[in-house]
Amino acid sequence: MKDFIIIGNKAVTGGKISLNDLPGSAGRMDVLCRCITAALFISFGMRRDVMVHLVLKGEPGPEKIIRFCGETMRSLNPDERSSGSLIQKALLVNASSFEKESTSGVFVRTGNLTALLEEMKGKRPIYYLKEDGKDILEIKAEAVSGAADGVAAAESPLFNNPVFILGDNQGVFEDDEKAIEEAGALKLSVGPLSLLSSHCITLILNALDRMENFRKD
Amino acid sequence: MKDFIIIGNKAVTGGKISLNDLPGSAGRMDVLCRCITAALFISFGMRRDVMVHLVLKGEPGPEKIIRFCGETMRSLNPDERSSGSLIQKALLVNASSFEKESTSGVFVRTGNLTALLEEMKGKRPIYYLKEDGKDILEIKAEAVSGAADGVAAAESPLFNNPVFILGDNQGVFEDDEKAIEEAGALKLSVGPLSLLSSHCITLILNALDRMENFRKD
Repeated sequence: MKDFIIIGNKAVTGGKISLNDLPGSAGRMDVLCRCITAALFISFGMRRDVMVHLVLKGEPGPEKIIRFCGETMRSLNPDERSSGSLIQKALLVNASSFEKESTSGVFVRTGNLTALLEEMKGKRPIYYLKEDGKDILEIKAEAVSGAADGVAAAESPLFNNPVFILGDNQGVFEDDEKAIEEAGALKLSVGPLSLLSSHCITLILNALDRMENFRKD
Repeated sequence: MKDFIIIGNKAVTGGKISLNDLPGSAGRMDVLCRCITAALFISFGMRRDVMVHLVLKGEPGPEKIIRFCGETMRSLNPDERSSGSLIQKALLVNASSFEKESTSGVFVRTGNLTALLEEMKGKRPIYYLKEDGKDILEIKAEAVSGAADGVAAAESPLFNNPVFILGDNQGVFEDDEKAIEEAGALKLSVGPLSLLSSHCITLILNALDRMENFRKD
């Protein structure tokens, strides 16, 4: 399993969002929609081993977590309106701290990044996307060189059920960075330029795909 | 300069497209919109050295080419509606075989893939994205090993003003494949899985970014 956590700093937490204005009144929800497509879609199907957690921090509050589960996902197309429409439905659910399924493969609850990381901390390798982080290709090289003969490099503990945390267009604010640090996350970068969050996800998954395909024989 | 040519097999060539239905009545225009974002956007700016040519092949005809020029682009945001809206404006122009600028940085004319490739053939390295193509990392390794000391690998003739051709969700049909072959294109792949066209563009640009950043000293 690969999990992506995306922080939507202004992404609204309630009301009926307008699919015609995802970047504006919905609080840059378009950024999150593109992340969903990047994380879940391949050319003729879906990545069933991927989970996306959107942490919505905008008005009116409280913070909410919407989880997109690749394994059971249905009715999702790669365009922004499609994921936006599933987010819209999730936001109309009367959310509590117990997860509710709003549509097939989409779950919503109240909660924040700290609570989410609490469930993963110490159990899975956690990476935090940051320009000054360690290059994913370096970590990949370590995983490859450390893999036993005939074993996929992706089975290395470095990438065993990894979790990746990404900010939106505003990045990650101090309180969330503190939670990320306390969860023991390693800073990771994907290249020499600062890129859109969705593009970072594509690059991470490609590195993992290449590792899964690589066996040291 | 890096050019991306995207073939929109069903992308409509006239009329007022609906921004609320880019995947449907506009003929999978959403695929092309995502390609534009992948090709032109970095985190806090635009790739000024990138050009995107959309080859629209849908109804009512004739075929049209819409060119997005990173260098002079304005009024473009990364969401699909934003690029969709610029395409919408371009399609309302009375197009001829002479290019007209519909909005800043967006140009439209009638024309097809063969005509477009004719301008590039023999002058620039042309790559055709295909699952059975040569891995871009292999070509990159060749460029790096062939680069002179202190020279960026990206200056290798292999990636000197490259052109990349990609199909949409339907791939590339026989007549276009013939034109691509006649232009002397090399088949290129970006990893072990078949991915969305926009995701392929992100992976190509990351490989080029890494090369531009790499100097053999």
